[in-house]
Amino acid sequence: MNISDSSIPRIVIIGGGFGGLQLIKSLPQGKFQIVLIDKHNYHTFQPLLYQVATAGLEPDSIAYPLRKIFKNRGDFFFRLAEVISIDTDHKEIHTSSGDLEYDHLVLATGTVTNFFGNETIAAKSMGMKTVPEALNIRSLLLENFEAALLTDDLKERESLMNVVIVGAGPTGVELAGAIAELRNHVLPKDYPDLDFRRMSIHLVEGTGKVLPPMSEGSSKKAQEFLESIGVQIWLNTKVEDYDGRIITTSGKPMSTQTLIWAAGVQCKPPEGLSGDDLVRGNRIRVNRFNQVEGKAGLYAIGDLAYMETENFPKGHPQVAQPAIQQGRLLAKNLNRTLKGQEWKPFEYTDLGSMATIGRTRAVADLPKFKTQGAFAWFIWMFVHLMSLVGFRNRVVVFVNWTYNFFNYNRDIRLIIRPFKNRSQ
Amino acid sequence: MNISDSSIPRIVIIGGGFGGLQLIKSLPQGKFQIVLIDKHNYHTFQPLLYQVATAGLEPDSIAYPLRKIFKNRGDFFFRLAEVISIDTDHKEIHTSSGDLEYDHLVLATGTVTNFFGNETIAAKSMGMKTVPEALNIRSLLLENFEAALLTDDLKERESLMNVVIVGAGPTGVELAGAIAELRNHVLPKDYPDLDFRRMSIHLVEGTGKVLPPMSEGSSKKAQEFLESIGVQIWLNTKVEDYDGRIITTSGKPMSTQTLIWAAGVQCKPPEGLSGDDLVRGNRIRVNRFNQVEGKAGLYAIGDLAYMETENFPKGHPQVAQPAIQQGRLLAKNLNRTLKGQEWKPFEYTDLGSMATIGRTRAVADLPKFKTQGAFAWFIWMFVHLMSLVGFRNRVVVFVNWTYNFFNYNRDIRLIIRPFKNRSQ
Repeated sequence: MNISDSSIPRIVIIGGGFGGLQLIKSLPQGKFQIVLIDKHNYHTFQPLLYQVATAGLEPDSIAYPLRKIFKNRGDFFFRLAEVISIDTDHKEIHTSSGDLEYDHLVLATGTVTNFFGNETIAAKSMGMKTVPEALNIRSLLLENFEAALLTDDLKERESLMNVVIVGAGPTGVELAGAIAELRNHVLPKDYPDLDFRRMSIHLVEGTGKVLPPMSEGSSKKAQEFLESIGVQIWLNTKVEDYDGRIITTSGKPMSTQTLIWAAGVQCKPPEGLSGDDLVRGNRIRVNRFNQVEGKAGLYAIGDLAYMETENFPKGHPQVAQPAIQQGRLLAKNLNRTLKGQEWKPFEYTDLGSMATIGRTRAVADLPKFKTQGAFAWFIWMFVHLMSLVGFRNRVVVFVNWTYNFFNYNRDIRLIIRPFKNRSQ
Repeated sequence: MNISDSSIPRIVIIGGGFGGLQLIKSLPQGKFQIVLIDKHNYHTFQPLLYQVATAGLEPDSIAYPLRKIFKNRGDFFFRLAEVISIDTDHKEIHTSSGDLEYDHLVLATGTVTNFFGNETIAAKSMGMKTVPEALNIRSLLLENFEAALLTDDLKERESLMNVVIVGAGPTGVELAGAIAELRNHVLPKDYPDLDFRRMSIHLVEGTGKVLPPMSEGSSKKAQEFLESIGVQIWLNTKVEDYDGRIITTSGKPMSTQTLIWAAGVQCKPPEGLSGDDLVRGNRIRVNRFNQVEGKAGLYAIGDLAYMETENFPKGHPQVAQPAIQQGRLLAKNLNRTLKGQEWKPFEYTDLGSMATIGRTRAVADLPKFKTQGAFAWFIWMFVHLMSLVGFRNRVVVFVNWTYNFFNYNRDIRLIIRPFKNRSQ
């Protein structure tokens, strides 16, 4: 892979998400040769993808070039490549751009959408885990409204306007809220000929509450917020199939040409691990040091890592914070080896969780208190703005949010790459 | 096409560029039913496309949704469609989304890239007339640098790093300048393993000077500016062929995997016009009122219109100003008909021309004076910022320019949709 050998140990990190980046930031300068491999040349700030999908933010403001982040580190190498398999016996990885040996290998590839084996849903619904996927949703929504104008068939028009989101976790809830705001404030001005009372936004959830991992109070309030802006919520409802127009569920069928799937994730580790290493959802079993036991120098962190602790007997939640904290600890532990010190085990510090439903409406379960409404919304905005990588991105996002707030607007409702008419 | 009939005359405008937009803006409220048809749902601010291609600006900041611009006009209808042909006898157009009758039809479709019939160049080079094309250039440039890192073959590496731009008009000059700045300030930090002294930027021009339509002084100064930042200029050189790696020219061959074609434009009017209506480059011959003679209610404006006047015996330059001025006059003339007044003929007011080569380096031929250097650069920035459609876009572009200026940076060097590895 064209990286010169070095006398210092080589750490290869696969995946430039929250975990991988924090690990590199926490590694001491010049003690390791650090190689980051990712199939994109940028870090994606996934918590704001839903705003890209709903024309609230430019894609370029939530993505940040990976090379740029570490450009002042002489010990850092980036390679744009897809990892095909790993050979833990020979401590080597095989990628689309050649092979590479490692001393330490950190798997931090996160998750992909889980369609639970339903191939028709996988083929006809929209996932939202990457920037191109979010842009596809933006294009599809707008293309469907343009098409709705051109038909006289009322049923066809409604199926073009309706949106169904499956999964009422934070992604589904935030997306439903943002689409409701588009319908309530933006789209009627764009399409005066369409009757937006006929557009339904359905949020379908298999369990008995929205935001399942959050507190009872936040969950109830989120549901109330969503209903107040016109999102129809279907709890205890399972989606069974989708033919591109009709969704079959355990309840009544729904008519839509836009099905967004936010109902589950799974991991997709590279080939080369044994079945014993993998648990439910293809997560990799690790010990309290994020080590894959029995494989020297192999680690997994973040969404991909499955670590049982007393407080989390079924593993940690697959969100940013465990990834960041595990990345930080693993970097320190690797450095402890150089100093001849003992490693410290991982203990998760829960910083809380949040979700926003729309302007001045959010819910936040924080370690010291819970809050819902405008204050939670300000906390949400502040935390997300500060977590973005890059000063330019923070300014651009801040400008957009301020502009959108005062104008009830989304200026970037652009079909740059059509999704339905992909030949254009 | 699902637009209700109306008692007032219907004007159909094909193309939401500078000319089409200005025409609509200048039409009186409520006197006409206005239908704008475009194959994109946004206006593209083409003068800044080169900054999208070179990671200086987000695509979303130079595009603006067409529906948004006229959302307060009750007499305005937009349809996203491709026009296939026009039937001037029956005053009807045929589009990808159905047919529509017109009273007045204004063709304002601008230009597309002209490869002068060379199909291998058309297939293997990059045009830059649309936002997706500019994004393709951005992706390709970055993908080639990533690939350059992975090869040990010096010739292959150079051909991946080299960039050849054909055509030294404003687009070619501005693009060459922006790529030279990337090489001089940004890329070496991203790719410390690559030797950027080995990266050549060639600007190839068939005539004897850069910026052919500009004054001798500006042309000379632009050449000097380009050479001072390391652009190699080849005047009086014709490109003959390209196999994806080697460009054959009337001079020496050049090795590159990135050929950007900015050497010519042509028009692509819809089917249904007779050969007599078309002149060189498929422009449509119009009289001084932008009417296509012999075709009642048919007009062409902007780049597409070929109008001979005393000062411009070979037609007006294919740039924004003639389009804007013709759009404005035609709107007024159409309104004069309603008032029973006589039409006024078109007379072009030359507001001058400008091109920027890079930070603090631009050339400007203005009606009252000519200037080159930092002052021209400030004028250039001010004029382009003020010409952008939409307040949000202006703020975002201003933030980016300020940030890039002080940081010598381009933060959005993202491969969102890979061009070479399109399957990813």
